[in-house]
Amino acid sequence: MEAVDTLIFARWIIPVEPAGQVLEHCALAIRQGRIHAIVPQSLAASRFDATEVVDRRSHVLVPGFVNAHAQTPLTLWRGAGTVPSFENWADAELVQLGAELAAAEMIASGTTCVLDSFGHPEIRARALADARLRACVSLPIADGASAWTLSADEAFSHALEIHDEYRSHPLITTAFAPAGVDLADATLERIGRLANELEMPIVLPLHEKAAGLEADSEGRGERPLARLERLGLLSPLTVGVHMVHLTAEDLDAAQRAAINVVHCPQSNLKRGGGLANVAKLQAYGLNVACGTDSPVDNDDLDMLDELRTAALLSRGRDAEEFIDAHEWLRIGTMNGAQALGLAEICGSLEPGKWADICAIDLNHPATQPVHDPAEVVVYAASRAQVSDVWVAGRALLSEGRLTGIDTGNLIARVERWRASLGHPERENLVELR
Amino acid sequence: MEAVDTLIFARWIIPVEPAGQVLEHCALAIRQGRIHAIVPQSLAASRFDATEVVDRRSHVLVPGFVNAHAQTPLTLWRGAGTVPSFENWADAELVQLGAELAAAEMIASGTTCVLDSFGHPEIRARALADARLRACVSLPIADGASAWTLSADEAFSHALEIHDEYRSHPLITTAFAPAGVDLADATLERIGRLANELEMPIVLPLHEKAAGLEADSEGRGERPLARLERLGLLSPLTVGVHMVHLTAEDLDAAQRAAINVVHCPQSNLKRGGGLANVAKLQAYGLNVACGTDSPVDNDDLDMLDELRTAALLSRGRDAEEFIDAHEWLRIGTMNGAQALGLAEICGSLEPGKWADICAIDLNHPATQPVHDPAEVVVYAASRAQVSDVWVAGRALLSEGRLTGIDTGNLIARVERWRASLGHPERENLVELR
Repeated sequence: MEAVDTLIFARWIIPVEPAGQVLEHCALAIRQGRIHAIVPQSLAASRFDATEVVDRRSHVLVPGFVNAHAQTPLTLWRGAGTVPSFENWADAELVQLGAELAAAEMIASGTTCVLDSFGHPEIRARALADARLRACVSLPIADGASAWTLSADEAFSHALEIHDEYRSHPLITTAFAPAGVDLADATLERIGRLANELEMPIVLPLHEKAAGLEADSEGRGERPLARLERLGLLSPLTVGVHMVHLTAEDLDAAQRAAINVVHCPQSNLKRGGGLANVAKLQAYGLNVACGTDSPVDNDDLDMLDELRTAALLSRGRDAEEFIDAHEWLRIGTMNGAQALGLAEICGSLEPGKWADICAIDLNHPATQPVHDPAEVVVYAASRAQVSDVWVAGRALLSEGRLTGIDTGNLIARVERWRASLGHPERENLVELR
Repeated sequence: MEAVDTLIFARWIIPVEPAGQVLEHCALAIRQGRIHAIVPQSLAASRFDATEVVDRRSHVLVPGFVNAHAQTPLTLWRGAGTVPSFENWADAELVQLGAELAAAEMIASGTTCVLDSFGHPEIRARALADARLRACVSLPIADGASAWTLSADEAFSHALEIHDEYRSHPLITTAFAPAGVDLADATLERIGRLANELEMPIVLPLHEKAAGLEADSEGRGERPLARLERLGLLSPLTVGVHMVHLTAEDLDAAQRAAINVVHCPQSNLKRGGGLANVAKLQAYGLNVACGTDSPVDNDDLDMLDELRTAALLSRGRDAEEFIDAHEWLRIGTMNGAQALGLAEICGSLEPGKWADICAIDLNHPATQPVHDPAEVVVYAASRAQVSDVWVAGRALLSEGRLTGIDTGNLIARVERWRASLGHPERENLVELR
């Protein structure tokens, strides 16, 4: 008998790696936070002596989702249409509250890892670590004064401090987030150099809207990807968010450097600037991940919903670019882990990797019958069917309940803040008398 | 004190009619199955003596959704990719099982009324009536032999029998469903005449795919809408499903007759034949409703999900065709009722109408804060947040539980049937040894 911490019995397991597999009637063993083994249920009881046995006989286990582009504090402005100017975000308490709310929403919907971009990285890193999520936290770099730092030098020193602080943290990593492609050459070059030395991702929105793509700060008419390539910022560490409007030259540059792409279909639809062509990006050999962007334009952090939208849009675009349900699950898990530089430690259910797992209960009228578990997960399952979430073997969601977050208290704090704003967005609200 | 049956206290009520309103801190009173009044909560307790008080203080009440195009028996083939030939559907037991499963799914996700198209109308009508859903059941008419009838004459007599049987039923109405626009002139003309005499809707897929639109059975190259207009089938009783590929002449014909349109965006995406332009259809004065189509191409009967997809697609298409969240709720409720000829009795929360109501609990991390209830319902709420559903005042879903359906038994029957098929769709399924 081998001693393990947790033994999960599941009806199906989709490990994502190896690709395209559905394991039926298996059990997954967790030891010291890592996936120890996946074995047939008939052998599990005799082979393992488990501290805890979790019985999920109508569920499918998939790797926890990796949301490769979020802006957690903006969750406070869900569906508000407009967001106050960033100066208001000097308020550290709001950054904290938004990140906490986002963490609760992400865990409850099966996300175990997030690439989070915004200001105040020290607050976001702390909030996401406290929620015990895995996260890659962006360190914003601007040339001049921002809501967080007064100069590029200050931004770099602040960023490197935070990077050092989390260097050996079990859950938190960091990435550089240039404020834009129009930063000074020297600033961008310094980001490229440091990212390379420290093996840190560089994350930024790229080629989202057709307008303004020819412009840079010096008016040279250089395309953003060309500028980043010239200054040494394109590499497998680069995470280009959106990547909608691309010429053949843009795609060639992306391919040469093997950069990563984050597809954010709901945000793209809501902001109306066009959609990335996932099949084409993949045909150029790029690693395509998926992200929700902020709830201002989404209006949620629901990766199941995002993957379903991505899959439907791809089906609607062109029959020749068919991407199957297994591949969409990979885009929402393993490809995200790869974009964040975490492909060796999470993103799939393989022995040796951290046990970042999402259990989805298919015992629901809307997901029966199950002719094909991957198809049902991508096209029919709802976030509410996510019953359990583990990160590094720790249960953050158990039978639908958040284990580490007092949801009632959190929502009460959020509602108190919202009520303090008055009702600027609700002119139609009528109280009968 | 007025005696009422049920008094629902809700945080918000979106009545849909009048348009654009959000009522806050109100109570809705139900008497004899109908909406009796909506009053401020402060007055409700002193004005009404209620048999039952339902407290939904973090919820929004909206009209129950009207799914204007479903094919309930096909729910058994959810996500299976292919469906067996229709001969297999001579099996009445499968039609019954699929309709029961669909009813459970629809009620659990807030749908109170459906326009259901398939064969075996007598079985579907009985199953939907037993589930206590409001439904308009299609009566299929073919020229020759089908799985249900042997000739057009037999189809008409069968249809009229069922129509008569349900003439005074409180929940079930019927509609003619021509098998196609290529039926014989005489058959189509007879449908038009009877529909007009009996005030029955005529429902059929129209202009879904670009291919084949110029053809009819006699090879005259007449467009389907032109043919139907010539034969007297276009009127406000006509329900055209899909309506994707339309010329200016097609739109003029639709406008002249003031027909109804059912937008099925997820089905259109998954089948890859293009998308209806909702704003343009509305600009021609057409009543646009929304439907899920069958779960073979969707893969669910989730109207919240369908409306979100429709709203996002419309945003992504063109900034000038902006349709707000309130209008999307109307498309998913009132406009559906109008398409089914039920605008006088349901589709909005107005005194005098049947109490067909959906309560959605917004007390969830993914739907907080609530800056704008309509926006949050359309863009962020999930079907699992539907807590209560009433049809004609009767609670079919109460605090998330189906009151009249044994879900466990139903799913067990569905699973037994699926298991009897073997695993034709699951070649990738691996059992570890």
